Amino acid sequence: MTLVVQKYGGTSVATPERLQLVAQRIRDTVAGGSSAVVVVSAMGDTTDDLIRLAHSVSADPPEREMDALLSTGEVITAPLLAMALAAADVPAVSLTGPQAGIRTTRAHRSARITDIVPVRVIEELEQGRVVVVAGFQGSTENMDIATLGRGGSDTSAVALAVALHAEHCEILTDVAGVFTADPRVEPSARVIPEITYEEMLEMAAAGARVMHPRAVEIGEAYSMPIRVLSSFEDGPGTLICRHPRMEQRQKVRGIAHETDLAKVTLLRVPDRPGVAASTFGPFGEAGINVDIIVQNVSHDGTTDLSFTIGQSDLKRATALLEDVARTVGAEGFATDSDIAQVSVIGTGIRGTPGMFAKIFRTLAESGVNIQMISSSEIDITCIIDRASVREAVRALHHAFELEKI
Amino acid sequence: MTLVVQKYGGTSVATPERLQLVAQRIRDTVAGGSSAVVVVSAMGDTTDDLIRLAHSVSADPPEREMDALLSTGEVITAPLLAMALAAADVPAVSLTGPQAGIRTTRAHRSARITDIVPVRVIEELEQGRVVVVAGFQGSTENMDIATLGRGGSDTSAVALAVALHAEHCEILTDVAGVFTADPRVEPSARVIPEITYEEMLEMAAAGARVMHPRAVEIGEAYSMPIRVLSSFEDGPGTLICRHPRMEQRQKVRGIAHETDLAKVTLLRVPDRPGVAASTFGPFGEAGINVDIIVQNVSHDGTTDLSFTIGQSDLKRATALLEDVARTVGAEGFATDSDIAQVSVIGTGIRGTPGMFAKIFRTLAESGVNIQMISSSEIDITCIIDRASVREAVRALHHAFELEKI
Repeated sequence: MTLVVQKYGGTSVATPERLQLVAQRIRDTVAGGSSAVVVVSAMGDTTDDLIRLAHSVSADPPEREMDALLSTGEVITAPLLAMALAAADVPAVSLTGPQAGIRTTRAHRSARITDIVPVRVIEELEQGRVVVVAGFQGSTENMDIATLGRGGSDTSAVALAVALHAEHCEILTDVAGVFTADPRVEPSARVIPEITYEEMLEMAAAGARVMHPRAVEIGEAYSMPIRVLSSFEDGPGTLICRHPRMEQRQKVRGIAHETDLAKVTLLRVPDRPGVAASTFGPFGEAGINVDIIVQNVSHDGTTDLSFTIGQSDLKRATALLEDVARTVGAEGFATDSDIAQVSVIGTGIRGTPGMFAKIFRTLAESGVNIQMISSSEIDITCIIDRASVREAVRALHHAFELEKI
Repeated sequence: MTLVVQKYGGTSVATPERLQLVAQRIRDTVAGGSSAVVVVSAMGDTTDDLIRLAHSVSADPPEREMDALLSTGEVITAPLLAMALAAADVPAVSLTGPQAGIRTTRAHRSARITDIVPVRVIEELEQGRVVVVAGFQGSTENMDIATLGRGGSDTSAVALAVALHAEHCEILTDVAGVFTADPRVEPSARVIPEITYEEMLEMAAAGARVMHPRAVEIGEAYSMPIRVLSSFEDGPGTLICRHPRMEQRQKVRGIAHETDLAKVTLLRVPDRPGVAASTFGPFGEAGINVDIIVQNVSHDGTTDLSFTIGQSDLKRATALLEDVARTVGAEGFATDSDIAQVSVIGTGIRGTPGMFAKIFRTLAESGVNIQMISSSEIDITCIIDRASVREAVRALHHAFELEKI
């Protein structure tokens, strides 16, 4: 009997009515002859409500206690779904993350899964039950509860699929799959039928929020096929896998964009060894993630060093910059929170002749000015004015004929 | 260092502000030189809300899943209180019932504690932390969550106090202690300073809702002193113990009453062996609790057999009665849901000369008609018209001068 792991996100389980719809869907899966393990998120805004509750009793709640509190969100959903399944005549049992054997590091609020010992899950599957597992959580060596941080339930699902040798893992969400571009920006955007793990990681890093990179990385490491699809409508969604079976004529897989960005420039930095370490060390220590870094060609022994950070980190970064500028001998610094990035993603894209030229020509013809460029084997990213981002996404989507896939 | 176990009920932890008040109170306890283990209930109406949620997805939710769901109420309170304590500079850690080592039977919704293995609790106490334990729950042999049913958090607290050899157990609630009568009925009612376990059990059975009998029984079995007191105001409350140290001049400890009652009478039952078994067997199987049973003196070989049940069971009882009446050869049956009981409680009360006479005279002088009488070593209970219950409580309270204790 094949085993499928399904994960339902917070929107899919937000109300009793939706839980009953989810139960119907699982019943169909089981009726099709599969065993099923179902990972659930907290209902709707439960996690945010719990965070608010915590902050109403403490300005700085200990992280271990936050995990004990936040984990209850998913622990509420799991038995409710098991009840809805039982009411639909599908034998089911709910398990917490610890009961499902999910072991984690002690890094509360952002724990990593170290191991899964799914003894109880296997026992229950052998009894013919659907096993509903509370996502986003596991237990540490000393049996404390730890949560997995952002994308935690996706991670629980893919990791369980690997541990249980499932046929594949389904991520059921409120969108129809991974799109060639954000459909709110480009109405002709289509659901990508198949995509590689690397491309999906790049899409996620470039702003496509449908799935968290952590879960994709686990899928890649263990070659676990992941299908992203809508929990509300029919449709095959997007299969994330190692070797898409479709023909590879279409090199470009999608256009991603990100507007939660700010740009920082250190002006006229002396071009000598150690500058990068002195610059980015303090940011790393402060937990500020630096993304794209561009260094202009040096003429007079100095250079302008630009990089992007998350917009929400800009205030803290500015506080660090005075010190950093002094340490590296820069003339000063500038910040710009009015930027965005647009990325063209596809395996082998950088090796494709004329790719850069086509992107730059497309953007130029649309009047979009490129401030910075970064590229990897599977993506080309341009930093542009935020005001141009819709125009850039639509122009690139059209240029690569993504509405025709 | 002495150890105190404190239990805070749902009203005491209903809001973030009250959690902070509770944290202050615990800080005072710790500042006084005690270690503290704190057992908490679910906040306010959380448990009722969760029950409603369950019934919105299933008409008949499996009890194992109900327990998994309901246990989250207390698991939410515990870390919130630990956070409030940390914010008040009191080192604290929260534990679920299973983490605290509370082991139970597999009788979901009404599990019994089989054992407590409080290894983690002791470790945390040794680190100088206040240990906040989610009440009402434990884990079964196969690591499922089970809840303890009504009065569950009181039971958790007293059982933990026994397992940890605490000096005493405090039950902090929304009333000032155990009263000589319900103060809403008799305004001169006073807090009883000390009371035996047996008297407390009788008070609880007779209608005083301040503490569930289960927890008192555990206290009695292990001679664990239990103090019931208000979490909102100062005051010593009521100490439940084996041998009250106060002088025993006052034989009557309190007046309890209960209005959630109905009376059933089987008419003209042939007076032969086996009648009681045939009558009460079906009630027991249906889970209907029968309390006071009175059989009139038999004249013509038949007898009227009356007994009381909870009012909410009357409908189900009526459905059984036709069969029961036929089986035992009764002429018919009558029911009366317009009754109440009033009980006079105190150790050795039945052996006290003139006690019955004084009670009957008091009620007669107040115009209260007695329908049935039952007595034990420590209580005398009269079944009366419901309309007379306030009058009866007040007259007895005054007759025994309970306003003067």
